[in-house]
This record gives sequence, structure tokens and C-alpha cells, in this order.
Amino acid sequence: MEKSCISVFLLLVAVSYALAKDFTSKNDGKRDTKEVKETKPRLPQTLSRGWGDNLVWIQTYEEALFRAKNGNKPIMIIHHLEDCPHSQALKKVFAEHKEIQKMAEKFVLLNLVYETTDKNLSPDGQYVPRVLFIDPSLTVRADITGRYSNRLYAYEPSDISLLYSNMQKALKLLKTEL
Amino acid sequence: MEKSCISVFLLLVAVSYALAKDFTSKNDGKRDTKEVKETKPRLPQTLSRGWGDNLVWIQTYEEALFRAKNGNKPIMIIHHLEDCPHSQALKKVFAEHKEIQKMAEKFVLLNLVYETTDKNLSPDGQYVPRVLFIDPSLTVRADITGRYSNRLYAYEPSDISLLYSNMQKALKLLKTEL
Repeated sequence: MEKSCISVFLLLVAVSYALAKDFTSKNDGKRDTKEVKETKPRLPQTLSRGWGDNLVWIQTYEEALFRAKNGNKPIMIIHHLEDCPHSQALKKVFAEHKEIQKMAEKFVLLNLVYETTDKNLSPDGQYVPRVLFIDPSLTVRADITGRYSNRLYAYEPSDISLLYSNMQKALKLLKTEL
Repeated sequence: MEKSCISVFLLLVAVSYALAKDFTSKNDGKRDTKEVKETKPRLPQTLSRGWGDNLVWIQTYEEALFRAKNGNKPIMIIHHLEDCPHSQALKKVFAEHKEIQKMAEKFVLLNLVYETTDKNLSPDGQYVPRVLFIDPSLTVRADITGRYSNRLYAYEPSDISLLYSNMQKALKLLKTEL
């Protein structure tokens, strides 16, 4: 019996495990069981998760990086949680904001309920909601921040105009290839 | 302006780029543009992508690894493409097969239209459709194969019973923790 042991991923998982612990206790195990045991048919899970059903959402971070580089488009990554009221509130205004939805088309879009292993995506820690931009040169735009000094990449619903102008900022690419 | 350059991912992306080239030419760039430019509202993209809308599908490989280890459940990974007729045909019988859909609940489920950077997921190359199992000990079950010697992890619609028995095989874990 041939087995390919993916020991490198054991390490990754160990790291994720440590990082994702409190996230998990809130969310993971419980939800999994609950959803599987539901007997009524339910709506299929979407990639948009309500952040804009008419937009194209990318499934994975790696794919987003590839598409950003390839298509010379910045990435917008939204970290959120389904059962976090702050995330839900931001999502509502984000999804209903026509200009934002329109401008979002210019981005490679990713929303994640699970942290990646890339520490560059948590310049000041892991929290939700957290919105980060990545330039097509694959540089995290740590300079594009919200208004809270303790959580630089957090936005409240009342900050939606700031988020809009930050999206404009992110569209001005750091390096433009001709 | 503070920038965190994610150079390690440049390498990853370079690798993915080389590996994903023919995949891309079929799929990526073109589809992206097309979807964004559609004017009619369309159904939101789903995580199931039609492989079983009532099942819980995991978004990313890292999350799947974490959940497998944590929940002591094997992973079932389906690599496929939306515009590949073989993938579509297998998907149809998979989604309509009641016993398979039922048994699938026992797995951490992932369907991917984009290759990961983990070479253990392509023991005999990258092709679609390709179905792999991973034990909760995070060992790729390279021993669980279909009937084609040139593409060990490919299944035709007529192989659906073999896929079903392979799922049963994968549920017999390599190591059971007490």
C-alpha cells in the first residue's frame, strides 16, 4: 500500500490549529454537526456568503493570488464569521451599497471564514471583520486602514464611506506594468 | 508606507502558474471576464457547485485538513472543471446517487476547480475529474484508485459503484485514536 505522507501539512495544521482555536470553539465543530444533521433541504452554501451574490468570488487564497498577478487586479479579502454580529452588520451595508458593489467588480474578491496560514494577512492580529487589500505585485497594502488604532483593518457599518474610498485607493496600483 | 511583501507566495504562484497553464487557458481569464460582464442577475456561485447542494462543502484545503484532523473524518477531494464534459458527467451521477450523497456526509468534502500547491494531491499528475481521499492522519490514500492505469484517480460515470465502494474503503481509517 503506497502512502504519501503529507508531513509538511501536519506543521501547517498545527499552526492553524493554534491560531484558529478560539475561532473554532465559536464556530467549527458545532456548526459542522448541526448542518449535516439538518433534515430539511436548505439553500446551497454560496461563495459570496451574502457579500454580493452578483459578484465573482474566488474560492481560495492561492487562486486569488494567481488571478491578481495574472489579471493585474488588486485583491480584496474580507475575513468574517457567520455568527459575528459585527461581520453581519458590515456585510449588510456592503451588499446594499450600489457603488461598492459596482467597484468590487474591479477586484479579485475573496471572503474567508477561516484564517489562512499567511501571517501577512494579519498585520495586527486575527479578528473579524477585517478587510485587507493586496496589490497585483502581491504586496499586502498594510497602509490602507480603517479608523480604529487597535484594529487597523476593521470597519463598522458607519465606516462604509471610508471603506469605499479605501477601495478607490487600492485600485491605484503600486506598480503598473505596461 | 508600510508594506509586507509576500515573496514566498510569489514562488508558490510561479509554481501554480506553470502547473495551471493549460487549465487556465481553458478556463480562468476568459471566464472571469465573461462572468463579471454579465448584466442579468445570476444565481450565486455555490461551494457545492452541483456535487450535492445539501452537503456541507469546505472552502479551502487548509480548512479541510484542519477539520479532518480535528473531527477524525477522512477528506474526499474532487478536482474538476466546470467546462469539462467528463467532470460534468461524473457530477451528475454523483449528485443523483442517493447512497453516495448519504455516505458523503461522513467525509470532510472539498471540490476544487483550481489545483493546490500540494503535490501529494497529484500522485500521477493533474487532471480532472480526479478523486482523492485523505485519512484523518493526513495521509493521502494513494492506494484507493479507480480503474484506469494511466489516470489512477479518474472515474467515469459508469464507475460510480467503484467510487461508492472506494468511499467505504476510505471510511476505514488507517489509524484510529481511542
